[in-house]
Amino acid sequence: VSPPPRPPFNAWGARRPELPPEAADFLRRELDLPGGVRREPVALADVRLGASALPDAARAAFAAAGAEVRDDREARVLRAAGKAYPDLVRMRTGDASEAPDAVVLPPDADAVAAVLAACAEHGVAVVPFGGGTSVVGGVAPERGGFGSVIALDLERLDALRDVDERSLLVSVEGGLRLPELERRLGERGLTLGHFPQSYEYVSVGGAVATRSAGQASTGYGRVDELVDGVRLDAPAGTLDLAARPASAAGPELRELVVGSEGVLGVITRADLRVRPLPPERRYEGFAFASFAEGVEALRRVEQLRAAPDVARLSDEDETRVALAQSAGGPAASVARGYLRARGVAGGCVAICGWEGEADDVARRRARTAALLKAAGAVALGRRPGRSWVRGRYEGPYLRDALLDRGVFVETLETAATWSRLPAVYGAVRGAIAGALGPASLVLCHVSHLYASGASLYFTFLAGEAEDPIAQWRAVKRAATEAIVASGATITHHHAVGRDHAEWLPAEAGALGVLALRALKRELDPAGVMNPGKLLPAG
Amino acid sequence: VSPPPRPPFNAWGARRPELPPEAADFLRRELDLPGGVRREPVALADVRLGASALPDAARAAFAAAGAEVRDDREARVLRAAGKAYPDLVRMRTGDASEAPDAVVLPPDADAVAAVLAACAEHGVAVVPFGGGTSVVGGVAPERGGFGSVIALDLERLDALRDVDERSLLVSVEGGLRLPELERRLGERGLTLGHFPQSYEYVSVGGAVATRSAGQASTGYGRVDELVDGVRLDAPAGTLDLAARPASAAGPELRELVVGSEGVLGVITRADLRVRPLPPERRYEGFAFASFAEGVEALRRVEQLRAAPDVARLSDEDETRVALAQSAGGPAASVARGYLRARGVAGGCVAICGWEGEADDVARRRARTAALLKAAGAVALGRRPGRSWVRGRYEGPYLRDALLDRGVFVETLETAATWSRLPAVYGAVRGAIAGALGPASLVLCHVSHLYASGASLYFTFLAGEAEDPIAQWRAVKRAATEAIVASGATITHHHAVGRDHAEWLPAEAGALGVLALRALKRELDPAGVMNPGKLLPAG
Repeated sequence: VSPPPRPPFNAWGARRPELPPEAADFLRRELDLPGGVRREPVALADVRLGASALPDAARAAFAAAGAEVRDDREARVLRAAGKAYPDLVRMRTGDASEAPDAVVLPPDADAVAAVLAACAEHGVAVVPFGGGTSVVGGVAPERGGFGSVIALDLERLDALRDVDERSLLVSVEGGLRLPELERRLGERGLTLGHFPQSYEYVSVGGAVATRSAGQASTGYGRVDELVDGVRLDAPAGTLDLAARPASAAGPELRELVVGSEGVLGVITRADLRVRPLPPERRYEGFAFASFAEGVEALRRVEQLRAAPDVARLSDEDETRVALAQSAGGPAASVARGYLRARGVAGGCVAICGWEGEADDVARRRARTAALLKAAGAVALGRRPGRSWVRGRYEGPYLRDALLDRGVFVETLETAATWSRLPAVYGAVRGAIAGALGPASLVLCHVSHLYASGASLYFTFLAGEAEDPIAQWRAVKRAATEAIVASGATITHHHAVGRDHAEWLPAEAGALGVLALRALKRELDPAGVMNPGKLLPAG
Repeated sequence: VSPPPRPPFNAWGARRPELPPEAADFLRRELDLPGGVRREPVALADVRLGASALPDAARAAFAAAGAEVRDDREARVLRAAGKAYPDLVRMRTGDASEAPDAVVLPPDADAVAAVLAACAEHGVAVVPFGGGTSVVGGVAPERGGFGSVIALDLERLDALRDVDERSLLVSVEGGLRLPELERRLGERGLTLGHFPQSYEYVSVGGAVATRSAGQASTGYGRVDELVDGVRLDAPAGTLDLAARPASAAGPELRELVVGSEGVLGVITRADLRVRPLPPERRYEGFAFASFAEGVEALRRVEQLRAAPDVARLSDEDETRVALAQSAGGPAASVARGYLRARGVAGGCVAICGWEGEADDVARRRARTAALLKAAGAVALGRRPGRSWVRGRYEGPYLRDALLDRGVFVETLETAATWSRLPAVYGAVRGAIAGALGPASLVLCHVSHLYASGASLYFTFLAGEAEDPIAQWRAVKRAATEAIVASGATITHHHAVGRDHAEWLPAEAGALGVLALRALKRELDPAGVMNPGKLLPAG
């Protein structure tokens, strides 16, 4: 059995897409970039890495639990960081000084429990590690005052243990990666329908621990809506919540495990709702005269329960950049010409997708399309949909290419009620643009619809500053302060991690933070679990 | 402003429906009842009630917070119990010895906070009190080792504070009753769509605190799916979670407040998702050859996302009793004749309901009906639907009439995955019948559908034993042990209260109970909040 795919330590992908020359020219112009910049990341052999400080007694206890312990360079460097912009900047320059002291690979949930007990006993911090794709510092190997830290890699907890086709429920170990889960489900005609942009690497436990949302979550539901049961192994013991369709038995403990980001324990099993594999997947483009008009149209279809399974609406700038990126291609020029002819030049493009039985897709598609058209949309047909499907996981690969060229590029997301959404959009966009200065691009799309509101996902680019980490910190702070001030959530699907922890009190309140700390004290009395994440310092 | 309607202290309703003679004969025969029993409940003036032990200092602190304090007989006796069978048995015999020492009525959320702080300071237990309709001992005025207990009545927190029509969100104070909320929403063309059988009395805070499900929750969602934001006033402070459509900011604290049953604090505000008031409500009957066939048909429509908003399927015995109860009426005889002719005599009846715009209802109804017919259903038309609508809140009134006649009658509910449902049904039904003996009726229906499973709601009747409380306890234990052993939830929508607390560890696990205790210690350090509920003793 070969280990599951894992991104390189200093990039998202092993392959590096070339920017089309038009796209490179466009960015150079818009971001006022110097020409000819090429930055090569440092190779593994040249990465700076300290000696492992793992105590021998802990090492022996891990081995006694049946876990493999690795402290070779490759193993440690591969778990030294997640995939946020500052992670990549640091790793590209060869700084893995923060790397975990060892990587521990338990064979099953009981071994996880034993490893956690040993960590509590020997004072070793633990970072649960799945696909390692966190973009908020969620897997940063912080020691939290302890002398050492391990990456607890769940890759061997990869079983699909139970498939209940009558109840459309499957029981999955926490380390199983989504593509492999989909492959095994597909053999039985089923799908989880969870496709975050990190899909190629992400593990079930990681998705559950971070309240992940996928590209089709408007239809299939966020991961928190897919979890019916869950097992958390914590230093204090095991919390095993059986799958139940609904219950009124007090506070929903399952909702404490979902989103716990490794600070309470390790998610070793999830019982997930699945669906029949859709025979038909249909994606189409629609154009709107403006972002505001498009948002209104999406609000209407969602509130009339006529939403597509995938619904993504780019704002004017994101639409403009998307068209410019493929400026030379026939698709974009056809689209531009068509849009001009229909009077929506300078407008916004939305991608809508429906999945299911062919007749169901046709029926639902007709209903959504009629409502969108009544709200001013122009149908662009399937070509933009196919183009979106081709590129749906490409964003992070492009980021690698942009980093090579000295471009600062980052994303962040939030969600708010429909009433607040326009103000949140304006405030966050303004804050990011203000922090980056004039030679920057701030792009946004709505990607998830709810009856009471929607998400906003921002992508922003600029020339890399002399201190890119300071640049990143300044933008992050400006954006998050604007989010908090406008009554939106600090994160819609990236989670809190290390980067948002300082703002958790704005979301949960002082008493909410105390409640979470009380839970952590109970489940992790020694405080070894994922230090520095989720909860603010102090 | 007149106070909201409140049930009498010793019954569900002020009115007492007469049992039709055929129904009375049927029950006498089936339950082997002696003829001519008539039990009159004790009048208020004759109820046994101890002196109030509220400390003067606490009384003064409540008054200083702006709350009214009542310790007259009527106020105390009206909050002496909920509406479970043992509550009514006790109150009918005039035993209010457990009654709270005083009833405290704060004017707003800040006064609630001040009252709770005073209770913690002076060692006074607090039972939050809304409509008082708990059927699991949730409002039992237990002192929990303190010298006195108050009923904290929320009736003055009755404002509809904010209506956000764009986001379909409303902000409601915890004491507002559902009928009044629906009246005010109706004026704006909106509805919450939450109609539990206790609808006539229940408060928003009570519904949220108990994870209530209403008769139309298959369509509108359980109350836990309707809450976007919430405020909990606890002795340790205020937890104010703003309405957000979705978030990935850690464990969902809202889900700790929902279902907290008064043991962490008082729900003083809820931000609720509402919908446009449906211009059309259509309810119809369908017959199946057997309960098993009907369950399969409902599973199919739910998993194909074609479920009606209301879906209730009675088993063979519940169907037989429903037809017998109206034996002399033309509707039932028509229905019976029709069913015989179609070959489903001795089968089961389901009520399905759709609500919305007329064309939406027609479209959805056609889809459900086609799928049900393909699964063997016979359409019975609208007459059974109208009959169900007329009687939808009648159950507890009938219980009063049955108690007058010396009938033991109780209900309980659970939920399980579709795979387990048949076994759970058999086990629980057998356990109840076994505990009640041969001269009993055990009726069941499915009332809420989920992709992964459904609820089961049991109603059971027998002749009242010499010690009806002991009889009740024996049946409750037998049923709950069967539920736990078969992997179902201890409660689908009645909550844990006092009656199920002993079985919470079977649902939440030992570590789950410790986690809840840790939360309680943080939010209610003195332990004054609703003693004896939710958490098991010890």
